[in-house]
Amino acid sequence: MSAALEPTVEADCTFGTDEPFRLNSGDRLQSVTLRYALYGELNETRDNALLVCHALSGSARVADWWPQLIGPGQPFDTNRYCVIGVNTIGSCYGSTGPLSENPQKPHEPYGSNFPLVTINDIVRTQALLLDHLGVERLTAVIGGSIGGMQALSWAVDFPERVERCIAIGAAPLSAMGLALNHLQRQAILNDPAWREGHYALDQQPVAGLALARGIALCSYKSAELFSERFARRPNRSGEDPQSSLTARYDIAGYLDYQGAIFTPRFDANSYLVLSKAMDTFDLAHGDRSEASLEAALRRIRARLLLVGISSDWLFPASDVRALAWAARAAGVKANYAELISSHGHDGFLAEAAQLAPILKAHLEEEQPAFAGTGRR
Amino acid sequence: MSAALEPTVEADCTFGTDEPFRLNSGDRLQSVTLRYALYGELNETRDNALLVCHALSGSARVADWWPQLIGPGQPFDTNRYCVIGVNTIGSCYGSTGPLSENPQKPHEPYGSNFPLVTINDIVRTQALLLDHLGVERLTAVIGGSIGGMQALSWAVDFPERVERCIAIGAAPLSAMGLALNHLQRQAILNDPAWREGHYALDQQPVAGLALARGIALCSYKSAELFSERFARRPNRSGEDPQSSLTARYDIAGYLDYQGAIFTPRFDANSYLVLSKAMDTFDLAHGDRSEASLEAALRRIRARLLLVGISSDWLFPASDVRALAWAARAAGVKANYAELISSHGHDGFLAEAAQLAPILKAHLEEEQPAFAGTGRR
Repeated sequence: MSAALEPTVEADCTFGTDEPFRLNSGDRLQSVTLRYALYGELNETRDNALLVCHALSGSARVADWWPQLIGPGQPFDTNRYCVIGVNTIGSCYGSTGPLSENPQKPHEPYGSNFPLVTINDIVRTQALLLDHLGVERLTAVIGGSIGGMQALSWAVDFPERVERCIAIGAAPLSAMGLALNHLQRQAILNDPAWREGHYALDQQPVAGLALARGIALCSYKSAELFSERFARRPNRSGEDPQSSLTARYDIAGYLDYQGAIFTPRFDANSYLVLSKAMDTFDLAHGDRSEASLEAALRRIRARLLLVGISSDWLFPASDVRALAWAARAAGVKANYAELISSHGHDGFLAEAAQLAPILKAHLEEEQPAFAGTGRR
Repeated sequence: MSAALEPTVEADCTFGTDEPFRLNSGDRLQSVTLRYALYGELNETRDNALLVCHALSGSARVADWWPQLIGPGQPFDTNRYCVIGVNTIGSCYGSTGPLSENPQKPHEPYGSNFPLVTINDIVRTQALLLDHLGVERLTAVIGGSIGGMQALSWAVDFPERVERCIAIGAAPLSAMGLALNHLQRQAILNDPAWREGHYALDQQPVAGLALARGIALCSYKSAELFSERFARRPNRSGEDPQSSLTARYDIAGYLDYQGAIFTPRFDANSYLVLSKAMDTFDLAHGDRSEASLEAALRRIRARLLLVGISSDWLFPASDVRALAWAARAAGVKANYAELISSHGHDGFLAEAAQLAPILKAHLEEEQPAFAGTGRR
């Protein structure tokens, strides 16, 4: 494996020091720092920017988690575009989140005092970063999973600033998705090491966070993939599952391993905040009537591409397809494509080769949203 | 709702006091008590018995959990058959399990010192009960989920004693099923109240057990059912999910409620033991080669009916169907039927009306397995 592409620029941008940033909840963040990464260069007119939004556990470093899609000649062509990655607020990869110092309690992290954020809050902070960079309008905003929620939110909340929007494996969460997120948060809250969210940084609730990750992984993958890879084989370490309560099958060893490599790199309170943001994502801003979803979709001016994944259990392809139809019915130039994959929700990462030509075609479409004389 | 049918007899049967009962693990149970319930009467020749096996959280009292299927005129017609329910060893509804006194430590329950049991162990204890009742051969053995595993195990392990076998929503667990069971056990083991399995009876690990139940329920139901019933509605108690980390959607309130009503009626160590028995169920007794599964199926003399459930995520209908085909290929008189249902795995309980005529037809089929001159 070759080393991931390095950003042209990786920096922090801080705002809200004069006037706090107002969240949808009514809470204020006294100061907001965003860690961002740029790949390629902004052109003189600053109209070659692609904003690529990350999923739950990602970072601003797009090339670290979507390496196949970025670089010269790739869909996110760094000779042509300036690719912008931004760590979301609430996360733990450089932007303001639960690990940041709480201005109310100097030298202490926010912990669980960090306020709830919504996808719209995340997107509004990104808009401030674009202002700072002098980018008025995005060639495209792209993301998968929670990143796709951000892309959709961009298209609805800042219609004038987005030419193209691509959301992969994303839609408002169904009841099953809400159920699984609730159980993941419960796994963390059940862990006494969580201490109501005020744990020392080296003593976070690893057992609860690993269990949450395990539950999540079952929804990120597919039964088919697990059967192909693990079947009913005993754990590769040589355990005999029949020998004791804790002796494992291979799939259990895999989940435990994934938990063990996740907890050192992710903060439990960030997990809670971002999982909740995923729950509350609703294009109609909490008003759940059909008319209101339609009103939200009617705001979109971008050319929209929604991509479903055939084996996605968390965001069923049928939900993504239904959203594409609803967008069309609301007059949006919307297309739908489907990745045929056994990888489940993680197909947005695992099927980059299948995704690449789909992204390329949408990004290079001759007629961008704002080219015509009419609205579309 | 009318009161459930009461058993004709509800009693305990104890054996193994002279010679301990040997488990597949090599461990011995010094004394085994089985709580059983009879509905209807054994005839003079004692050849009208139906053994109905319960699932993870069930009991010997069949009419309590399958009320629509049992009684005069129902598939389990108590005017015609004697229906036998037996609480499995390892459970907490009257048979020997983790809550029973540990003969090695008088006045103390086994707790986590209760040995692992297999589906074959459970079935062998049931065979001893049938000996005690003077029942040589069963008209049929029937069960759903783990109960279906027991029914299949009966047909393979005691071929001479079973005329008909009906297993609903049952097959060896796939990797995804093993994953979900592992996470459920982890939820219990993570709870400090579990205390390595030696908790006081009124201080069991309720948070961990409720979380395990929540994970299980997601696999017992279907995404479709959750969407129909709960959609993205806020919890019916009036919480606003956007207001705080712990304010819930309706589906989350439902899962919490189900956890709260489960923990007072089930023992965490029993849950661990039976969940593990579910994992290790493998008709070929741990030898996973195809030839060996075929050899196991070749032993079956019963007429076999396997019933899949269209929306079952834990035991996909495709797995149940594949098992039916494998049985046919091994020369078994096997049929397959499918419940069309949005209830998921729980369809074996929720779709009793759809199940009834299927069961009746198989039970009343004119040519039982042993009627002909040849083997079948």
